[in-house]
Amino acid sequence: MRLSSIDVFYLAIPNVTNAADGTQDSLVVRIRDEEGLEGWGECDASPLVTLAAYCCPPSHGNIINLRDTLLGERVESAADVVRLGEKVLRDGLDIEQVHHALSGADIALWDLLGKKLGEPVWRLLESVEPSASPPAGVRVAAHAKVPYASVLFADSPEATKARAAKLRGAGYAAAKFGWGPLGRHGEAMDIALVEAARSGLGPDARLFVDAGVVWGEDDATAFRRAEAFQAFKIGWLEEPLLPDAVAAYGRLRRRNPPVPIAAGEGANRLRFAEDLVENGGVDYLQIDAGRIGGVTTAFRARRLAERRGVVYVNHTFKSHLSLAAALHVFATAPTFDLLEYPAEGSELSRSLVRRPLERGADGLVRVPEAPGLGVEVDLETVRRFLQPVRIEVAGRLVHDTRAP
Amino acid sequence: MRLSSIDVFYLAIPNVTNAADGTQDSLVVRIRDEEGLEGWGECDASPLVTLAAYCCPPSHGNIINLRDTLLGERVESAADVVRLGEKVLRDGLDIEQVHHALSGADIALWDLLGKKLGEPVWRLLESVEPSASPPAGVRVAAHAKVPYASVLFADSPEATKARAAKLRGAGYAAAKFGWGPLGRHGEAMDIALVEAARSGLGPDARLFVDAGVVWGEDDATAFRRAEAFQAFKIGWLEEPLLPDAVAAYGRLRRRNPPVPIAAGEGANRLRFAEDLVENGGVDYLQIDAGRIGGVTTAFRARRLAERRGVVYVNHTFKSHLSLAAALHVFATAPTFDLLEYPAEGSELSRSLVRRPLERGADGLVRVPEAPGLGVEVDLETVRRFLQPVRIEVAGRLVHDTRAP
Repeated sequence: MRLSSIDVFYLAIPNVTNAADGTQDSLVVRIRDEEGLEGWGECDASPLVTLAAYCCPPSHGNIINLRDTLLGERVESAADVVRLGEKVLRDGLDIEQVHHALSGADIALWDLLGKKLGEPVWRLLESVEPSASPPAGVRVAAHAKVPYASVLFADSPEATKARAAKLRGAGYAAAKFGWGPLGRHGEAMDIALVEAARSGLGPDARLFVDAGVVWGEDDATAFRRAEAFQAFKIGWLEEPLLPDAVAAYGRLRRRNPPVPIAAGEGANRLRFAEDLVENGGVDYLQIDAGRIGGVTTAFRARRLAERRGVVYVNHTFKSHLSLAAALHVFATAPTFDLLEYPAEGSELSRSLVRRPLERGADGLVRVPEAPGLGVEVDLETVRRFLQPVRIEVAGRLVHDTRAP
Repeated sequence: MRLSSIDVFYLAIPNVTNAADGTQDSLVVRIRDEEGLEGWGECDASPLVTLAAYCCPPSHGNIINLRDTLLGERVESAADVVRLGEKVLRDGLDIEQVHHALSGADIALWDLLGKKLGEPVWRLLESVEPSASPPAGVRVAAHAKVPYASVLFADSPEATKARAAKLRGAGYAAAKFGWGPLGRHGEAMDIALVEAARSGLGPDARLFVDAGVVWGEDDATAFRRAEAFQAFKIGWLEEPLLPDAVAAYGRLRRRNPPVPIAAGEGANRLRFAEDLVENGGVDYLQIDAGRIGGVTTAFRARRLAERRGVVYVNHTFKSHLSLAAALHVFATAPTFDLLEYPAEGSELSRSLVRRPLERGADGLVRVPEAPGLGVEVDLETVRRFLQPVRIEVAGRLVHDTRAP
């Protein structure tokens, strides 16, 4: 069956601030086919810029928008989804935003295909790129993940400790603190913040620190902080440097830091991830399926991690629609056991799907077995937070959001 | 003085086709300061998607549009331009399109600064990153470049030969043929096309071949074509592989091809260029200042080429506004003597500046000595090809093109 409609919806809460909170808005993509089936996806991206990639007039053969590229195409197998992703990237070769835009469409296409075939997405993904060393005689199966609560450092050590204690009370066995004041007030403050997070979480919880690219290309400072934070038994130091400061990551690696280094959320192409692993020497590869081009490319990054002996982990700071997509990518990887789990977030992100991926009684999160992504978008939420967009070019309407 | 206005103008010819001709539309940027001075820049990018990066509502602290980031800022020195570029990249960290968008603004800021200081841009650029090995006692000077005509293969070998003969008649000592049927009809046709180009140009002209990414990640075929084309004395084989197929470029390098390999036009970050040089092993680094983030980042890529012993050359397939920006970047590099010179193109691209950068009596092209970029945008052309854009988000007008 052919794709019959592609809708992109810009959602936002009423008062967006400059806080490092990615749940304040969203671009969600809905794709329908002639049979009436539909799939949904979400981008972690600027909604307006991404929406423009779905409706921009053509510039030449390398700048063709995603809607024109996808409408009318046939989707009946995993190979079709892979082929359409390649078509989008080829026809949009010179649209820089194309990977962020493709992410939502690719996720929606997998959701649609899974519903059509009656299979969860994770089961369909193996055919994208078979494992180089499949376990002999063992059927591919999904594995539960340890959710780590992903939150921001509070403005002070005291408030950070309280936030950590609250997470501990909520039963989290792992948590990540990031951004906020870290790196902005000198070493003593940085140490006090991490110490506070550890103190609030207790000695046994797994603690991760996200530096939010704050030291730029300064691998010397990043190394000193890695040494200082070691005392608090952190599981990794994340993004101490800018996303594409690969040379600086390589220098940091050669200093042999005493804690693992994590990065990759900014990766918008598979090569970006490959470069970070091969030349940046990161230990944890953090991929956002809502940026790198969807579930397909994220799955290839997972395979890359498996081949290279680094750990794949999702980056997710959107709704549970994104979380589900992220989880399907590596649900079948038994040794990649951590799942970034947005523990706070806006009303928009918390209500976008009807039944979020709750932690089980054992504290673990399991990938849905239902067809497609296994989450259901709440149309009421879409309507409630919808920011209708209208774009005219030379008097011609190129986008006008229709009612969801 | 502070920046008082930032205008982005979407220009296009009436009937844009899917041909690989980047001159059918354009996004030009005009920045004015409180003194009434103005600078102009051009992006090689999707006009609508790029324009959206100038007006998108904020999503959080890492998605802030270029207009909000730049308006009211002070520009009085080269350091200011560099600082503002870094600010745009920091505040737009999660806008994938930010590098294409920054390109136009950065070029406009250098044009503005040059006019303010009464200096051509090429003279101001040295302070961005001094040469690692400055020629002792030699003043930095501009050097004339050999323009190579950059055209597409025609649909047949016969028509390609005629096109080449026409360029020869027009006095070009160097020409590049690319895209069109190359790579789409097998080896015999590919060889016939290159042979036709050589035959039409004559034995002494420098001939370059642009494969237009047609062999994807297939380094074996790229290598075979490099061997086959060697007979026609080509100066390089350009983009035989996809822009981010760096691993495949590395494999091609290790096959030791008999002609130089060129790539880089898709580079939208300095790391992309660095990765191509370090891990892809390219011989020629082709940078488009209209994509990589403007003159500032292109200049850093030139310095990278100088350090690594590869040849820097511009990629330019837009108007002479882009050509001027491209030329300022490496005018002072005596050994980088080739200049991609758009020899065909739309009426829009040919009339965007009043006095294009013509070849001198010796066939060479010289960088302007006038302040700024040294080219003057023709407002009549801007008005004639203008595609006014109007964008509303939730009923609020976020962009409405005003009269130029």
